[in-house]
Amino acid sequence: MDLQKRIDRGLERAITFATAGGQPAKIGAAMRHAVFPGGARVRPRLCLAVALASGDRHPEAADAAAAAIELLHCASLVHDDLPCFDDADIRRGKPSVHAAYGEPIAVLTGDALIVLAFETLARECSAAPDRTAPLIATIARAVGMPNGITAGQAWESEPEIDLRHYHRSKTGALFTGATAAGAIAAGADPQNWYALGEALGAAYQVADDLRDSAADIDEIGKPCGQDAAHQRPNAVAELGLTGAISLLQETVQNAADAIPECKGSSMLRDLILAEAKRLVPKKLAQSAA
Amino acid sequence: MDLQKRIDRGLERAITFATAGGQPAKIGAAMRHAVFPGGARVRPRLCLAVALASGDRHPEAADAAAAAIELLHCASLVHDDLPCFDDADIRRGKPSVHAAYGEPIAVLTGDALIVLAFETLARECSAAPDRTAPLIATIARAVGMPNGITAGQAWESEPEIDLRHYHRSKTGALFTGATAAGAIAAGADPQNWYALGEALGAAYQVADDLRDSAADIDEIGKPCGQDAAHQRPNAVAELGLTGAISLLQETVQNAADAIPECKGSSMLRDLILAEAKRLVPKKLAQSAA
Repeated sequence: MDLQKRIDRGLERAITFATAGGQPAKIGAAMRHAVFPGGARVRPRLCLAVALASGDRHPEAADAAAAAIELLHCASLVHDDLPCFDDADIRRGKPSVHAAYGEPIAVLTGDALIVLAFETLARECSAAPDRTAPLIATIARAVGMPNGITAGQAWESEPEIDLRHYHRSKTGALFTGATAAGAIAAGADPQNWYALGEALGAAYQVADDLRDSAADIDEIGKPCGQDAAHQRPNAVAELGLTGAISLLQETVQNAADAIPECKGSSMLRDLILAEAKRLVPKKLAQSAA
Repeated sequence: MDLQKRIDRGLERAITFATAGGQPAKIGAAMRHAVFPGGARVRPRLCLAVALASGDRHPEAADAAAAAIELLHCASLVHDDLPCFDDADIRRGKPSVHAAYGEPIAVLTGDALIVLAFETLARECSAAPDRTAPLIATIARAVGMPNGITAGQAWESEPEIDLRHYHRSKTGALFTGATAAGAIAAGADPQNWYALGEALGAAYQVADDLRDSAADIDEIGKPCGQDAAHQRPNAVAELGLTGAISLLQETVQNAADAIPECKGSSMLRDLILAEAKRLVPKKLAQSAA
């Protein structure tokens, strides 16, 4: 089964469980809206790719980890789009959850998706019960305080931002969590996989900055120019367009170099290079060609 | 060690972990503000009391469950107080989190407390690893969709409220989760403890309605009359004051009757009757005396 199918099946199982009985209806519809149809599913694909490269000895644990990671990513997007943060009405080319269902349901949808992520891990790992606690601790670390994505988002409320900590928490942590969780699910040592997650997180941050600065809403399905509007740090603002593109190429190469020697390393290298291509806004890619 | 000390120690461990390094500082302070000093800690005390009544064979698992339950309760209060829900500036007699730290930090504080609850369970149960998954699944069910407190809160956005489902989710679920988790942590069968949790949840709901209608802000440390202001169902509005007091006495008796035969049953009965007294607003208790 290809990665995309495994991810969609895992997410469908989780959302079906959370909306069993059909009531209360609005939040159930909002949870589905937040998760389907997805974006590129970068983080769960990375998790599964690492699990496969590590032998994938417990596919149901890897599927649960991938689903949990994507549910947490979706939850963070729902809350990021709230009026008190980005106040974004568009996400993945359709109305954001708060635009479609109102602010109370958007807050609760994020909360319910976070809970569902951990519930999914607890429920789906029964064939590999010794993985449950390490997976939950690893994934929680990637999203919670003091080094996960909530910490990253919270840095924006500080009088002075520690840029390295900010980027590592806001973007890098869930990539690192995805690689580590893929390894743990497969029974491999996560230590060998942190460097890849960190390098990919750094690459993704630069790519996201490029997309925010140089793409348009039709291409990326969400408002552009948000970093400038919210006075957030952005690699293009700091280094210029050419500098940011060089930095992206360099970080992608670092990521490819960080793949540990294993059976699936060439598959992973291909995945990363394909991702990197996809992440550069089309106009930039055309002008660079 | 008495229950209160065990609970405070568990919560202190969790918050210390989440705020290690001291950065980002604002959300760290807000998490502490949301959790300390606490309210009555009713739910974690119930969890520990059931664990003790069931032999308390793994006190660290019971402590982790109690901490997780209280962290989730605190998270729900932080989000309930947001402008898009109750818009309450006062909680436990001091500024609510959004009043003290702003709305973005309040949203993130709730998120981080939810994550921390599950992280605490994953991290603290290593002496009883077979309990981790059942505890997380049980506690997640009590707070998530479709039957936990987020579902209860989401019922308020439905065009028609299923009152039984609403109360069971919004208030009852975390009481049921607390009794079941206490039993699981001690290695006992949670089935015997659901009835007690349900009865206590029902009693607590009536008591909360009474406090909202008949107490004042100094006594309960949060704004009163919120149900009427937000057109939410309330037992006093439905049954009158005398009817609501009779219903409270009846539900407390149901709870005391639902305690299964066990070594600690008389301790539990005393705890419940003491709770029930504490829950009735002083003015009502005086006028009833």
